[in-house]
Amino acid sequence: MEILVQKYGGSSLANADRIRAVARRVAASRDSGRPIVVVVSAMGDTTDDLIELAQQLAEDPDDRELDLLLSTGEMISCTLMAMTLRHMGHEAISLTGAQAGIRTDSSHRRARIVAVDPSRVHRELAAGRIVVVAGFQGITEEFDITTLGRGGSDTTAVALAAILHARTCEIYTDVDGVYTADPRIEPRARKLDEISYEEMLELAQQGAKVMHPRAVELGSVYGVPIVVRSSFNENPGTLIHGETAMEIRNKVRGIAHDTDVAKVTVVGVPDRPGIAASLFRPLADANISVDVIVQNASIQGTTDLSFTVARSDLNRTLRLVQPLTGELQAADIVSSTDLAKVSIVGTGMQHAPGYAARMFKALADRNVNIDMITTSEIRITCLIDAQQVSDAVQALHETFQLDKADL
Amino acid sequence: MEILVQKYGGSSLANADRIRAVARRVAASRDSGRPIVVVVSAMGDTTDDLIELAQQLAEDPDDRELDLLLSTGEMISCTLMAMTLRHMGHEAISLTGAQAGIRTDSSHRRARIVAVDPSRVHRELAAGRIVVVAGFQGITEEFDITTLGRGGSDTTAVALAAILHARTCEIYTDVDGVYTADPRIEPRARKLDEISYEEMLELAQQGAKVMHPRAVELGSVYGVPIVVRSSFNENPGTLIHGETAMEIRNKVRGIAHDTDVAKVTVVGVPDRPGIAASLFRPLADANISVDVIVQNASIQGTTDLSFTVARSDLNRTLRLVQPLTGELQAADIVSSTDLAKVSIVGTGMQHAPGYAARMFKALADRNVNIDMITTSEIRITCLIDAQQVSDAVQALHETFQLDKADL
Repeated sequence: MEILVQKYGGSSLANADRIRAVARRVAASRDSGRPIVVVVSAMGDTTDDLIELAQQLAEDPDDRELDLLLSTGEMISCTLMAMTLRHMGHEAISLTGAQAGIRTDSSHRRARIVAVDPSRVHRELAAGRIVVVAGFQGITEEFDITTLGRGGSDTTAVALAAILHARTCEIYTDVDGVYTADPRIEPRARKLDEISYEEMLELAQQGAKVMHPRAVELGSVYGVPIVVRSSFNENPGTLIHGETAMEIRNKVRGIAHDTDVAKVTVVGVPDRPGIAASLFRPLADANISVDVIVQNASIQGTTDLSFTVARSDLNRTLRLVQPLTGELQAADIVSSTDLAKVSIVGTGMQHAPGYAARMFKALADRNVNIDMITTSEIRITCLIDAQQVSDAVQALHETFQLDKADL
Repeated sequence: MEILVQKYGGSSLANADRIRAVARRVAASRDSGRPIVVVVSAMGDTTDDLIELAQQLAEDPDDRELDLLLSTGEMISCTLMAMTLRHMGHEAISLTGAQAGIRTDSSHRRARIVAVDPSRVHRELAAGRIVVVAGFQGITEEFDITTLGRGGSDTTAVALAAILHARTCEIYTDVDGVYTADPRIEPRARKLDEISYEEMLELAQQGAKVMHPRAVELGSVYGVPIVVRSSFNENPGTLIHGETAMEIRNKVRGIAHDTDVAKVTVVGVPDRPGIAASLFRPLADANISVDVIVQNASIQGTTDLSFTVARSDLNRTLRLVQPLTGELQAADIVSSTDLAKVSIVGTGMQHAPGYAARMFKALADRNVNIDMITTSEIRITCLIDAQQVSDAVQALHETFQLDKADL
């Protein structure tokens, strides 16, 4: 029988009562007869508490040391979950990331999974046990413990689901699924029953917090059906899977927004080849993601080059870019943090014209000024004033009739 | 240059300030140029807190699960120590028990070390690093994490010192060393500069808490010189090593006492062979240590058989022994917990008569009644009333002139 992989986040495991509630849910799924692998995050604020403890002793703790420290959070929650399941009368066993065969490279704090050896998991499942795996962690060839960085536990779950050919990977969180927009901003936002990997990836990359883009991408590559649902109720959630009725569903699927945006403009650089490369190479080397990039039309041989980064990366970005002004012959470098991105996403957009025009008109009608624009095949993103995010999201939700159910 | 192994207990690592103080001490030792391996226990009450957390979720948590849970305590303290040392400008790396090559059997909660693979430790030392090892833990052939039970971190330290052919294994604790008696009971108790493995083993087994007998025994087998000293001052501590001037030092070395004693008496059993075996086999199988055993002289073909166990084992002992009364044809089983053991220990005793007589007279002079007596080659133990422990220890300390310095 096909395996079911379930992942529970830290807020679903914040205390003994919640751990018991999750264990009851796991047990109920197990009672259906299906083999189950459960991936857990660290309880509640454990990870933050451990980082605080480390910073009391070392301003800038070593990444390898921090990884071993942080990995204990998931070890604790996986043993507690296994104990609780056993106490309820179910066969269960906890496995660390290493024991579950999660092999990674040695980039501490943001390790990538290079292989999964599922032999121990298979053996324990064959013995009739519920297997509880510590998420967010793996082990290098040198037997050093690594953590996977942001979205780590989701990634562990999807990687295990892929290697185990699981029927689905269920991601349990504190919301009911993927919404057409953030319900805290747009009360008429509607939960989607299903969405394609590509759409989910764009939404996640443009600020939808429900799942990390990295785990969505892995699911897409290996064709793992992912269900995002709440651990606090029985609602069916949202299925993320391969493309379905693309040509029929000629629509915008969702609206993402992101206020964690800082904009940097390099003013008055000579318009010659190689400028962008010499600007962005050092940022890439420093692991800073550059998002929207816009180069203004050349005026008298010089141009302005603007790009956005995460707000937390702004200081590092400026430290890296400022020394280059001489080399770039730039007049000035200016930055701003009172900006936000708002995006419309939908597979249907790529072969149907007019979405951009409708988006710009909807924003203009609400007096939302557009600072920069960037597009992909299935997405249009506008950079706007941070104060106008709610207005913009609501306007777009209405214009594209996202409160109406799918066909 | 010969390696130095240092072990720091939980009270020496109870908070950030103490961790820093220990790190400074480690760094000072390192500055002498000697390669250093540091073994750490879990911080303060971490282990108790983790057990409490487990018991909120499962009345009787599984031993394998509990082992993974408890092992996180030492992982946390070893990473914090390594970070602190790095922050102070020293090269340092933390290793889990598994990474340090501590291989054990699969008896969870009380695993025995079966081998130590020191290759990673050697590699890190060769790279000039201080190696900080999580004590109390190991790994099985199946890659399951085990804990070593009582005295576990001391045992890790001595095992590493043995395999690394370390010059000494320093056990840092909250007392200055090994005393002639418990200084809280006998204010004139004197710290010993040195003591033999055999004497320390007897003292530890008879209630001296400063080191666990298991680690002393391992040190004895591999000839590891052990120094017990305080982490809170610079006093030199006590050296535990092979026998020295045995024939000259014809003396009692120390007095141990133990109030964790319960006595069980099987009354009126027929005096025939095999009685003791059928009584003690089930206790051994249940891992209950039976200490003093006394069989009274046979009166009219029946005898009383008394033995002591740790107080915490009394209920389990009675549950195992009571069903045997029929088989043993015993008249009754009675137990008592208001007892204590007091022992004199000294290698010099074994070839010099008269120690027992002096001990009994000293106790009689203070009106201390002796309930049972047991001896080894270098020890005499009396079971007495728990109320009279202080009187007994003080009387013996005076009689054997333990406040006087060694030759």
